[in-house]
Amino acid sequence: MKPKRILVIHGPNLNLLGKRETHIYGKTTLPEINAHLKKCARQKKCKLLIYQSNIEGELVNKIQKVGQNVDGILINPAAYTHTSIAIRDALLAIPIPKVEVHLSNLSRREPFRHHSLISDIVDGQIMGFGVMSYRLGLEALLKVTKNKRENS
Amino acid sequence: MKPKRILVIHGPNLNLLGKRETHIYGKTTLPEINAHLKKCARQKKCKLLIYQSNIEGELVNKIQKVGQNVDGILINPAAYTHTSIAIRDALLAIPIPKVEVHLSNLSRREPFRHHSLISDIVDGQIMGFGVMSYRLGLEALLKVTKNKRENS
Amino acid sequence: MKPKRILVIHGPNLNLLGKRETHIYGKTTLPEINAHLKKCARQKKCKLLIYQSNIEGELVNKIQKVGQNVDGILINPAAYTHTSIAIRDALLAIPIPKVEVHLSNLSRREPFRHHSLISDIVDGQIMGFGVMSYRLGLEALLKVTKNKRENS
Amino acid sequence: MKPKRILVIHGPNLNLLGKRETHIYGKTTLPEINAHLKKCARQKKCKLLIYQSNIEGELVNKIQKVGQNVDGILINPAAYTHTSIAIRDALLAIPIPKVEVHLSNLSRREPFRHHSLISDIVDGQIMGFGVMSYRLGLEALLKVTKNKRENS
Amino acid sequence: MKPKRILVIHGPNLNLLGKRETHIYGKTTLPEINAHLKKCARQKKCKLLIYQSNIEGELVNKIQKVGQNVDGILINPAAYTHTSIAIRDALLAIPIPKVEVHLSNLSRREPFRHHSLISDIVDGQIMGFGVMSYRLGLEALLKVTKNKRENS
Amino acid sequence: MKPKRILVIHGPNLNLLGKRETHIYGKTTLPEINAHLKKCARQKKCKLLIYQSNIEGELVNKIQKVGQNVDGILINPAAYTHTSIAIRDALLAIPIPKVEVHLSNLSRREPFRHHSLISDIVDGQIMGFGVMSYRLGLEALLKVTKNKRENS
Amino acid sequence: MKPKRILVIHGPNLNLLGKRETHIYGKTTLPEINAHLKKCARQKKCKLLIYQSNIEGELVNKIQKVGQNVDGILINPAAYTHTSIAIRDALLAIPIPKVEVHLSNLSRREPFRHHSLISDIVDGQIMGFGVMSYRLGLEALLKVTKNKRENS
Amino acid sequence: MKPKRILVIHGPNLNLLGKRETHIYGKTTLPEINAHLKKCARQKKCKLLIYQSNIEGELVNKIQKVGQNVDGILINPAAYTHTSIAIRDALLAIPIPKVEVHLSNLSRREPFRHHSLISDIVDGQIMGFGVMSYRLGLEALLKVTKNKRENS
Amino acid sequence: MKPKRILVIHGPNLNLLGKRETHIYGKTTLPEINAHLKKCARQKKCKLLIYQSNIEGELVNKIQKVGQNVDGILINPAAYTHTSIAIRDALLAIPIPKVEVHLSNLSRREPFRHHSLISDIVDGQIMGFGVMSYRLGLEALLKVTKNKRENS
Amino acid sequence: MKPKRILVIHGPNLNLLGKRETHIYGKTTLPEINAHLKKCARQKKCKLLIYQSNIEGELVNKIQKVGQNVDGILINPAAYTHTSIAIRDALLAIPIPKVEVHLSNLSRREPFRHHSLISDIVDGQIMGFGVMSYRLGLEALLKVTKNKRENS
Amino acid sequence: MKPKRILVIHGPNLNLLGKRETHIYGKTTLPEINAHLKKCARQKKCKLLIYQSNIEGELVNKIQKVGQNVDGILINPAAYTHTSIAIRDALLAIPIPKVEVHLSNLSRREPFRHHSLISDIVDGQIMGFGVMSYRLGLEALLKVTKNKRENS
Amino acid sequence: MKPKRILVIHGPNLNLLGKRETHIYGKTTLPEINAHLKKCARQKKCKLLIYQSNIEGELVNKIQKVGQNVDGILINPAAYTHTSIAIRDALLAIPIPKVEVHLSNLSRREPFRHHSLISDIVDGQIMGFGVMSYRLGLEALLKVTKNKRENS
Repeated sequence: MKPKRILVIHGPNLNLLGKRETHIYGKTTLPEINAHLKKCARQKKCKLLIYQSNIEGELVNKIQKVGQNVDGILINPAAYTHTSIAIRDALLAIPIPKVEVHLSNLSRREPFRHHSLISDIVDGQIMGFGVMSYRLGLEALLKVTKNKRENS
Repeated sequence: MKPKRILVIHGPNLNLLGKRETHIYGKTTLPEINAHLKKCARQKKCKLLIYQSNIEGELVNKIQKVGQNVDGILINPAAYTHTSIAIRDALLAIPIPKVEVHLSNLSRREPFRHHSLISDIVDGQIMGFGVMSYRLGLEALLKVTKNKRENS
Repeated sequence: MKPKRILVIHGPNLNLLGKRETHIYGKTTLPEINAHLKKCARQKKCKLLIYQSNIEGELVNKIQKVGQNVDGILINPAAYTHTSIAIRDALLAIPIPKVEVHLSNLSRREPFRHHSLISDIVDGQIMGFGVMSYRLGLEALLKVTKNKRENS
Repeated sequence: MKPKRILVIHGPNLNLLGKRETHIYGKTTLPEINAHLKKCARQKKCKLLIYQSNIEGELVNKIQKVGQNVDGILINPAAYTHTSIAIRDALLAIPIPKVEVHLSNLSRREPFRHHSLISDIVDGQIMGFGVMSYRLGLEALLKVTKNKRENS
Repeated sequence: MKPKRILVIHGPNLNLLGKRETHIYGKTTLPEINAHLKKCARQKKCKLLIYQSNIEGELVNKIQKVGQNVDGILINPAAYTHTSIAIRDALLAIPIPKVEVHLSNLSRREPFRHHSLISDIVDGQIMGFGVMSYRLGLEALLKVTKNKRENS
Repeated sequence: MKPKRILVIHGPNLNLLGKRETHIYGKTTLPEINAHLKKCARQKKCKLLIYQSNIEGELVNKIQKVGQNVDGILINPAAYTHTSIAIRDALLAIPIPKVEVHLSNLSRREPFRHHSLISDIVDGQIMGFGVMSYRLGLEALLKVTKNKRENS
Repeated sequence: MKPKRILVIHGPNLNLLGKRETHIYGKTTLPEINAHLKKCARQKKCKLLIYQSNIEGELVNKIQKVGQNVDGILINPAAYTHTSIAIRDALLAIPIPKVEVHLSNLSRREPFRHHSLISDIVDGQIMGFGVMSYRLGLEALLKVTKNKRENS
Repeated sequence: MKPKRILVIHGPNLNLLGKRETHIYGKTTLPEINAHLKKCARQKKCKLLIYQSNIEGELVNKIQKVGQNVDGILINPAAYTHTSIAIRDALLAIPIPKVEVHLSNLSRREPFRHHSLISDIVDGQIMGFGVMSYRLGLEALLKVTKNKRENS
Repeated sequence: MKPKRILVIHGPNLNLLGKRETHIYGKTTLPEINAHLKKCARQKKCKLLIYQSNIEGELVNKIQKVGQNVDGILINPAAYTHTSIAIRDALLAIPIPKVEVHLSNLSRREPFRHHSLISDIVDGQIMGFGVMSYRLGLEALLKVTKNKRENS
Repeated sequence: MKPKRILVIHGPNLNLLGKRETHIYGKTTLPEINAHLKKCARQKKCKLLIYQSNIEGELVNKIQKVGQNVDGILINPAAYTHTSIAIRDALLAIPIPKVEVHLSNLSRREPFRHHSLISDIVDGQIMGFGVMSYRLGLEALLKVTKNKRENS
Repeated sequence: MKPKRILVIHGPNLNLLGKRETHIYGKTTLPEINAHLKKCARQKKCKLLIYQSNIEGELVNKIQKVGQNVDGILINPAAYTHTSIAIRDALLAIPIPKVEVHLSNLSRREPFRHHSLISDIVDGQIMGFGVMSYRLGLEALLKVTKNKRENS
Repeated sequence: MKPKRILVIHGPNLNLLGKRETHIYGKTTLPEINAHLKKCARQKKCKLLIYQSNIEGELVNKIQKVGQNVDGILINPAAYTHTSIAIRDALLAIPIPKVEVHLSNLSRREPFRHHSLISDIVDGQIMGFGVMSYRLGLEALLKVTKNKRENS
C-alpha cells in the first residue's frame, strides 16, 4: 500500500515559535515541531509536506497546488482562522480529510478568537495542547483518512 | 472613438473553476470564461485586461496600477467580497464605473456571504447566473461607461 | 418550438417611474420600460405578460394565476422586496426560473432596503443599472429557462 | 341555545393547497379542508363562515365586518402571521375567543417564520398537524367559547 | 389666494374608532373626527380630501393619485406605520409637506410600535392626544405649507 | 391490531397543578388530568404510560427506557422546554411521533418562555388551552402515529 | 375658576437658540420663544413658569420644587431626552399632565437621538415644527389638563 | 511511581451510543468505548474511573467526590456542555488537568451547540473524531498531567 | 405567637465551601455557615429548615414539599441562579416572602453570572458579603415576613 | 480605637421620599431614614456624614472631598446608578470599602434599571428592602471595613 | 497677528490627578499639567483659558460662554466622553477647531469606554500618552486652527 | 547614547496618497510624508526604517524581520486596521513601544472603520490630523521609548 501523504499548513506568525514570547508558547521552534511531526510520520509510515507563510493568498496557493496530491490536510491557520474565507474556500474545493489544530486554548483568549471560519468544514478540531495538538491532529487525520479509504 | 478598456478582476480560488466541484460550478474553466468574455468584448469593440490572484494585496496592486488606464472595472472578488476593506479602498480611489459579479447566488449560502464590502461603491451587482453573470456584467459596465462619457 | 412565455411583475410605486423624482430614476416611464422589454422579447422570440400593482395581495393573485402558465418570472418587487413573505410564498409555489431585478443599487440606500425576502428563492439578482436591470434580467431568465428545459 | 357561529380565516396562498407542492402540503385542497371543517361543525352544532384572501386589507375588512357577529375566530394567517400588525389590530378590536392554526411546524422553517405577530393575542395556538390543525383548532375554539359564556 | 388642499389619510382599523374598545380610544367615531377636522379646515380656509382604507396598496394608490393635487398630507398610517415601505415610497415621491399623527402614545405600547417607517420623511410627528393629535397636526401642516410657499 | 402505546411526560412543577395558583391554572389536579387522558385513551383504544418528575435527568432516563417500547410521546416539558438540551437529545434518539403541549399560551409570558428547545424536533405543538391542550395533543399524536404506520 | 399654571422646562443648550447655527434652528431666540408662549398663555388664560438650565440636576430641582404647584409640564429636555433617568424620575413623581416637545424631527438625526427616556411617561409628544412645537404642545397640554380636571 | 488515576465523565444520553441512530454515531456502544479506553489506560499504566449519568447534579456529585482523588478528568458533558454552569463550577473547584472531548464536530450542528460553558476552564478540547476523540483526549490528558507533575 | 419557620436553600457546589479554593471563599464550611445561621435564628426566635443539593430537581422537590409549611425562603441558588427556570417556577408557586443571597459579587464575575432568573420574583437580593450575605438575608427575610403578616 | 466614619450618599430624587408616591415608597421621609441610620450608627459606634444632591457633579464633588477622610461609603445612586460613569470614577479613586443599596428591587422595573454602572466596583449590593436596605448596607459596610483593617 | 486663544476643558475627576492612584496616572497634578500646557502655549504664542468641573452642565455653560471668543477647544471630557450628549451639542454649536484628548488608552479599558460621543464632531483624537496627549493635542489644534484661517 | 531606530509601517493604498482623491487626502504624496518624517527624525536624532505594502502578509514579514532590531513601531495599518489579526499577532510578539496613526478621523467614516483590531495593544493612538498625525505619532513614540528605557 502506498504511503499516505499529508499536507501540513502553518499560518501567520507561527515561524516565530520558540523565538519570542517563550514564556507563553514554550521554547520549541517551528523547525523542531516539524522535526517532531516528521518523526511521528515515519512511525506511521506517511509522508509530510510542510508549509508556512504569513501571506493568506500564498496559503491558498499551496493548498490548491499540493492539496490535490495528498491524502489529508493538517492545518493551524493561526490568525487567519478567524478572518480568511479564502482559505475556507480553498479547503472546501478539496474533498479529502482535514484536521484543524491550535497550540493554545482559543476559548481563553480574546472574543474574536472564539469563532473559526473553518471548523465546520474540517473533520475535527484539537486545541490547547501545544505541540501535542499537532501530533494528536496528525494521528486523528491518518485515522480519518484510513476510514474513508476503507469505506470507499 | 478609442475602444474602451476594461479591467476584469477574478478573486481567490476562481482559478480552480471547472477543475473541481464541477457539480456545483459547472465544467467551464477560468480560461474558457476569459475566452468567452474576450469574444464578447470583440463584439462590443472593447479591450479586456484580465487578472486573477489569490493574494488580496496583489489584487490591490493590480487595481492601483491598471485601474487608472481603463474605463471600467468588472470584479468578482470571491471570498474577499466579505473580508477585504483594502480592495474596497483601492476601488474607491478610482473614479470610473465598476460592476460586481458573482457566479452563485450568495443569498443561498452561508450567512457570512450575505454581506458585500464593495456593493455600495460599485454601480451595480449581478449574481447567480454562473458564467453569464460575467457576460451580463460586462454589458452593463460598458453601458454605464458610455452613459458617463456622454454626460461629461 | 413553442415561444417561451415570461411573466413580468412590477411592484408598488413603479407606475410613477419617469413622472416624478426624475432626477433620481430618470425620465423613462413604466410604459416605455415595458415597450423596451417587449422589443427585446420579440428579438428573443418570447412573449411577455406584464403586470403592475400597488397591492401586495394582487401581486400574489397574479403570480398564482399566471404563474402556472409561464416559463419564467421577472420580478421587481420594489418596496415589497423587504416586507412581503406572501409574495415569497407565491413564488415558492411555482417551480420555474425566477429573476429579481432592481433599478437602483439597494446597498446604497436605507439599511432596511439591504435585505431581500426573495433573493434566496430566485435564480439570480441584478440591481443598480436602471432600465438595463430589466433587460439583462430578461436575458438571464431566458438563458436559465433554456438550461432547465435542456436538462430535463 | 342558539348555535355558535365561527369565522374561519385563511391567509394568503392557502387557496393553492393541494394543487402545488403536494409533496409538502399533501393533496387536500382548500375546498376539501373547508368541507371537512363544515362536517365537524355540523357535529358540534355550530355554523362556519369561511373566508380566504391574498390581500391583507381584505382580511382586515372581513374580520371587522363579520367579527362582531360571530362567537369565535379560527385563523391561519399564513405569511401574514409574521408581517401584519393590521390583522393583529383587527383581531384585538373584537373581544371574542380566537385560535391560531398552522398546517406546518413553523419552528422547522426559516427563522423569520418563528415569530407570530398574533400569538400573544389569541387564546391558543396549534401547528404542525396539517388539516388536523384546523379541526383541533375548531374543537379548542368551541370549548373556549363555551367556557367564556359560562363564566360570564 | 387659492385655498390650500390637504389630503387626510387614515390607515387600517381606524374606521372602527368609537365603535369598539371605547374605554381605550374614546367614543368619537371616524366620521365625527372627520367632521371635526372639516370644521377646523373651514376656519383655516382650506379644503380636506379624506380617505380611509384597510388595504396598504389602496392607500398607496390614493397617495399617488391625489397627492400631486394637494398642498400637504396629514397621515395616521396606524398599523402600517411599522410595516409599510410601500407607503413610505409613495410619500417620498411627492415633494410636499407631510405630518404624521397618532391617537395614542406609541411609546407606551408594544415594542414593535416604537419605530415608524415614515417619521424621518415627514416634517413632524404628533402623538398621544387622541382626536386632538389630528387637529394639531392639521394646524402644523398648514403652517409648514405656508412657510414653504413663502420661501419659494 | 395491537393497541398503540403512548408515553405521557409531565415536566417539573406540574405535580402542583390544582393545588396552588388555582386562579391561574384552574382547580384540575395532575391526577385528574391523567384520569381524563386515560379515559380518552380508552375511547381511542390506546394505552398510556404516564410519568412526572422534577428532575431533568430522570425525564431523560424515562424517555430512554420507555421510549423504545411506545408508539408516540406526548410531552409537556414545562420549565425544561426552555433550558434542556438533554431532553431534546433523548427525544431525538427515538424515531417515533412526538407532540409538545403547554397549558398556558407561552407567547403571553416572560420572553425567556417564548423559545422552545424541542419545538423543531416534534411533529407539532399545541398551547394555551389548559387541560384541553393535553387531550387535543393526544388526539393529534394518535393520528400522526397512524399516518406513519400506514405510510411505512 | 382659577387660571391653570404650567411649568415650561427648556433643557441644555436651548439658551443658544437664534444666536448660533441660525441656518438650522432659525433666528428666533429663547426669549422670543418664551414671549410667544406667554402671549399664547394669556389668550388661554393660563400662567407660565419658565425655566432653562444646562445642568441636569438643576432641572430636577426645579421640577421637584415647582412641579407640585402647577397643573401641567411642557418640557423640551434637549440632549437630556436621551440620557437622563433622573429627569424621568422627577417627572414620574408628579401625577400631572406632561407634554414633550422638540424643535427638530429627531428621527432625521443621529441614531442616539431616536430614543427618548421620557416619551412613555408623558401624555404625548410633538416634534419637528420648530417654535410651533412649543405652541401646539402648550395647547395640547391645556386640553389634557382640562380633561383630567373634568374626569376627576 | 504511583500510576495516575483518571476520572472519565460521560454526560446525558451517551449511554445510548451504538444502540440507536447508529447511522450517525456508529455501532460502538458505551461499554465498548469504555473497554477501549481501559485498554489504552493499561498501556499507559494509568487507572480509569468511569461514570455516566443523565442527571446534571449526579455528575456534579461524582466530580466532587472522585475529583479530589484523581490526577485528571476526561469529560464529554454532551448536552450539558451548553447549559450547565453547575458542572463548570464543580470542575473549577478541582485544580487538576481536564480535557473536554466530543464525538461529533459541534461546529456542524445547531447554533446552540457552538458554545461550550467549560471550554475556557479545561486545558484543551478535542472534537469530531468519534471514539478516537476519547482516546486522543486521554493521551493529551496524561501528557498534561505529567507536565504539571514535573513542573511542580 | 408561633415562631416563624424559614427554609434555607443552598444550591450546587456550596457543600464544598471551606474545603477547596479557600483563598477565594474563605475557610468557613457549609456546616459552620448553617451553625451560624441557626444561632442567629435562635436570637430571632425563628426555626430554620436547611437543605443543600447539587440536583436541580431535588431543590424543586424540597421547595415544593417544605415551601408550603414555612413563612419564608432564603435561597442561594448558586449556579442554578442563571440556568434554572424550574426553580423559578417552584418559587413562584409559593406566595411567601423570599430573599436571594450570594456569597460573591456576581457583577465582578463572568458575564453569564450577571443575570439571575429569580431576582424579579424575590423580595430582595443581597450579594458580595460572604457568610454575612446569608445573615443579612435572614434578617431581611424575617422583617419582610413580619410586615406581610401585619398587613394581612 | 477611633470610631469609624461613613459617608452616606443619596442620589437624585431621594429627597422626595415619603412625600409623594407614598403608595410605592412608603411614608418614611429622607430625614427619617437619616435619623434611623444615625441611631444605628450610634449603636455601632460609628459616625455618619450624609449627603443628598440631584446634581451628578455635586455628588462627585462630595465623594472627592469627603471620601478621603472616611472609612467606607454607603451609596444609593438612584437614577445615576444607570447613567453615571463620573460617579463610578470618583468611587474608583478612593480605595475604601463601598456598599451599594437600593430601596426597590430593580429587577422588577424597566429594563434600563437592570444594569448598574457601579456594582462591579463596590464590595456588595443590597436591594429591595426599602429603608432596611440602608440599615443592612450600613451593617455590611462596617463589617467589611473591620475585616480590611484587621487584614492590613 | 493677534495671538490665538484656546479653551482647555478638563472633565470630571481630573482635578484628582496626581493625588490618588498615582501608580496608574502618575504623579503629575492637574495644576502641573496646566503649567506645562501654559509653557507650551507661550512658546507657540497663544493664550490658554483653562477650566475644570465635575458638573456636566457647568462644562456646557463654560463652552457656551467662552467658546465664542476663542480660536479652538482642547477637551478631555473624561467620564462624560461616553455619556454626555449635552456637551456634544454645546461643542456642535461653535464652528471652530476642536481636539479630543485622553490620558489613557481607552481601548484597553471597560467596553463602555470604547465609544466617544464627541469623536465624530472633533477634528481629531489623541489618546494613551498621559500628559503628552494634552501637549500633542494643543500642537495639533494650533495647526488645524492655522490651516482654517489660511483657507478662509 | 546610540540613536533610536523606528520602524514606520504604511498599510495598503497609502502609496496612492497625493495622487488621487486629492480633495480628500490633500496633495502630499507618500514620499513627501516620508521625507517630512525623516527630517523630523534627524532633529530628534533617531533613524527611520520605512515600509509600505498592500499585502497583509508582507507587512507581517517586515514587522517580524525588522521589528526585533528597532526601538519602536509607528504604524498606519489603513484598511488592515479593521481586518487583520495577523498584523496584531506580529505586533504582539515584539515587546517594544508602538503608536497607531490615521490620516483621517475614523469616527466620521463607515461604521466598519470605527473599530481597530490593534488599538488595545499599542501605547496610544492619534487620528484625524493628516500628515501631522504621523509627526505627532513619531514624537509620542520617541517619548514612550525614552520613558521605557529610563524605567528599565
